[in-house]
Amino acid sequence: MSSIPEFVDTLIHPGWIVPVVPEGDVLTGFSVALVGNKIVAVLPTEETTYINAKKVHTLPEHVLLPGLINAHGHAAMSLLRGYADDLPLMPWLEQHIWPAEAKHVSEEFVRDGVELAIVEMLRSGTTSFTDMYIYPDITAEVSQAMGMRCQITFPVFDFPTAWARDADEYISKGLALRDRLKHSELISVAFGPHAPYTVSQNNLSKVATLAAQLDIGVHIHLHETTGEVLQAVEQHGERPIDTLHRLGLLGPKTQCVHMTDLGNQDIALLAATGAHVIHCPTSNMKLASGSCPVAKLLAQDVNVALGTDGAAANNNLNMFGEIRAAALLGKLHTQDASAISAQQALSMSTINGARAQGIDDCLGSLEVGKLADLIAVDMSGPETAPLYNPISQLVYASNGSQVTHSWINGKLLLENRALNNIDMPQLMQKIQKWQHRIGSQ
Amino acid sequence: MSSIPEFVDTLIHPGWIVPVVPEGDVLTGFSVALVGNKIVAVLPTEETTYINAKKVHTLPEHVLLPGLINAHGHAAMSLLRGYADDLPLMPWLEQHIWPAEAKHVSEEFVRDGVELAIVEMLRSGTTSFTDMYIYPDITAEVSQAMGMRCQITFPVFDFPTAWARDADEYISKGLALRDRLKHSELISVAFGPHAPYTVSQNNLSKVATLAAQLDIGVHIHLHETTGEVLQAVEQHGERPIDTLHRLGLLGPKTQCVHMTDLGNQDIALLAATGAHVIHCPTSNMKLASGSCPVAKLLAQDVNVALGTDGAAANNNLNMFGEIRAAALLGKLHTQDASAISAQQALSMSTINGARAQGIDDCLGSLEVGKLADLIAVDMSGPETAPLYNPISQLVYASNGSQVTHSWINGKLLLENRALNNIDMPQLMQKIQKWQHRIGSQ
Repeated sequence: MSSIPEFVDTLIHPGWIVPVVPEGDVLTGFSVALVGNKIVAVLPTEETTYINAKKVHTLPEHVLLPGLINAHGHAAMSLLRGYADDLPLMPWLEQHIWPAEAKHVSEEFVRDGVELAIVEMLRSGTTSFTDMYIYPDITAEVSQAMGMRCQITFPVFDFPTAWARDADEYISKGLALRDRLKHSELISVAFGPHAPYTVSQNNLSKVATLAAQLDIGVHIHLHETTGEVLQAVEQHGERPIDTLHRLGLLGPKTQCVHMTDLGNQDIALLAATGAHVIHCPTSNMKLASGSCPVAKLLAQDVNVALGTDGAAANNNLNMFGEIRAAALLGKLHTQDASAISAQQALSMSTINGARAQGIDDCLGSLEVGKLADLIAVDMSGPETAPLYNPISQLVYASNGSQVTHSWINGKLLLENRALNNIDMPQLMQKIQKWQHRIGSQ
Repeated sequence: MSSIPEFVDTLIHPGWIVPVVPEGDVLTGFSVALVGNKIVAVLPTEETTYINAKKVHTLPEHVLLPGLINAHGHAAMSLLRGYADDLPLMPWLEQHIWPAEAKHVSEEFVRDGVELAIVEMLRSGTTSFTDMYIYPDITAEVSQAMGMRCQITFPVFDFPTAWARDADEYISKGLALRDRLKHSELISVAFGPHAPYTVSQNNLSKVATLAAQLDIGVHIHLHETTGEVLQAVEQHGERPIDTLHRLGLLGPKTQCVHMTDLGNQDIALLAATGAHVIHCPTSNMKLASGSCPVAKLLAQDVNVALGTDGAAANNNLNMFGEIRAAALLGKLHTQDASAISAQQALSMSTINGARAQGIDDCLGSLEVGKLADLIAVDMSGPETAPLYNPISQLVYASNGSQVTHSWINGKLLLENRALNNIDMPQLMQKIQKWQHRIGSQ
């Protein structure tokens, strides 16, 4: 599958390789070699005898696959995990989440919340996440320091928050952040206008113009609920997706998050413009938002990636739960047990996430030449036995706690479930301090 | 909460107690004392100083709660986990599951499959399960030997299987098994007529008569899909639930499994007769069967318990996944984020499971005088931090891998995630043998 290198940094001998691309492939008896931040070879294990590797990992009971891409979330909100549950959407937001955020969110809150989130994500197989939250500079800093890959989508609102006064300041601060990070190997920056109901059409137009000029992605909450769509139709005489299209915001660099209320004309518009959908099945169920018609979207070649949403609406950042939820909900929603197969759900959490960011040429599958973002999942336990099909076991019988190793950009971050370079007792102490501070309100 | 005993077998000092009854209660600073197979005291930890305990467990970072009751499954089918997925129901059954069963199911298959299933259930917090499968004598024997609590519901079909020739033989063998086990502390036996479409009305009548005479429970698949209900209406001119009622099979000892196709009149009939519903949300989603209207049932005081169904249709036996699925699906189905709260989902997996068997006077909650079926769940990890509400973390942020201890009938079976008295390497070898045998077909 590639010429044999003589010297490599890392050589991995897994029991199985699930490369995700080509779809459905499962390799046995193959090894993977890494040099720097790249995958340089996928080759039969017997051909690796003469390779000199600085580090060798022999994992005969593990599946090696591309790291999971969590395509939507608000990492800092991990500090509000379980703070308020089982409430209708608006009382949940207006009486619990927003007041808690108004009182507590600060640079320190974001710093500690993001660190907790990244630890949770690393321990459950995520190697890249997309984030939308205030203080995106802090999120970027923490992510970079921890060696985590991240797409920062800096927020834009009409109203002030602790981070910016108005849309112009959100945009200028966000673009300045992008300039500072333009040489980062791990962090990319895109626009994150929050939603059509929190950002005026005037400000959305500014985003559209700048995004086109600078060739930057746009990540936006869209059609999360039917109520939101109906309200827009009443106020503006058109569906939010049509507003975005009219403003020039719908294109191959647009990531539309949630999309539960979609008619055939909306799906055709997504297909025609090449916009991407980010599906958050658990959040959509927990908040009773609705069901994204994923099977219909995939049938029209609309790219659908997966996200956990924030921990306050899930309440975890474990992509294994999301993959499983996507497959199960997809079958129920279509009344077809063959809809959203295990492979499709796995693709949504890997290559499709990379496609949504326009970086599927270098991420999202285990292929020679791509960036070395990989995870190893232990299949030796009774939960995944017998093992007829590793892809089925990954999707329907694994829960994230079997992830033992994680490499990002060629670096080993998780080894035998231990996180290298993270002081866990210190982190847990910081989180306890937040728990007391927020929980005592 | 009780007089202080002087000598006890086990004394547990957990960080939190979630007794399930009363609903919503969370105790901190309390301890639990066990004598023999019973809970003898729940008392402030400071009052335990003078208690002499043979074994003391200090678990300050753990929640102690009643063991989970898996109210429906086919344990032996764990050997077919992941054997065939993502197929429509009938091709899945007719072209994959049934042929594999016809070829491979034997006493040995059931023995090894049930052992694997019990190991998986113990490691994810289940302390009691209901089973329906052929060779129920083997299932009972394995469960008893492993110290697991089990409700055996012996199958009745019109057609022959490897275990029995016809309905009369199923019934006579099942009742003989019940006689042999009548003094068992762990195993109870009930009728398991498979479904109204696999057991004739004549044979269902026999079950009804004997169940009434002997005062035994009846466990039956019912209204799993709309197609099944429509076919019955075409063939018999009535809905299956009405057939059962007419035959005298619907009462406070009846456990109706699945129940996705339910009108208001069906719900009223369940409420009037006191029959129980066993909800299997993951199986219903994975096989695209439909959604059980749980919120409506609970509103009419119909008891609803939870089950995983067999591992071929899930593909795991982890009740934490089921609890979470029940809460999420309940919200989506009603379009109400406050429907099926975390506490309700937890009750469905504990006390409601005991109620369905008519043993809620002695099982299903952590209360003095009840049987000592308990689990401890570790809340010290980043996945469950911060911890504002242990019930929310159990339902929305735990995945079963945090279960560290499990007591059944007062005996410690799982300790720091290790299973006492189970030879895991030997079990995994047996499962590998089945994997090769079945997978090579």
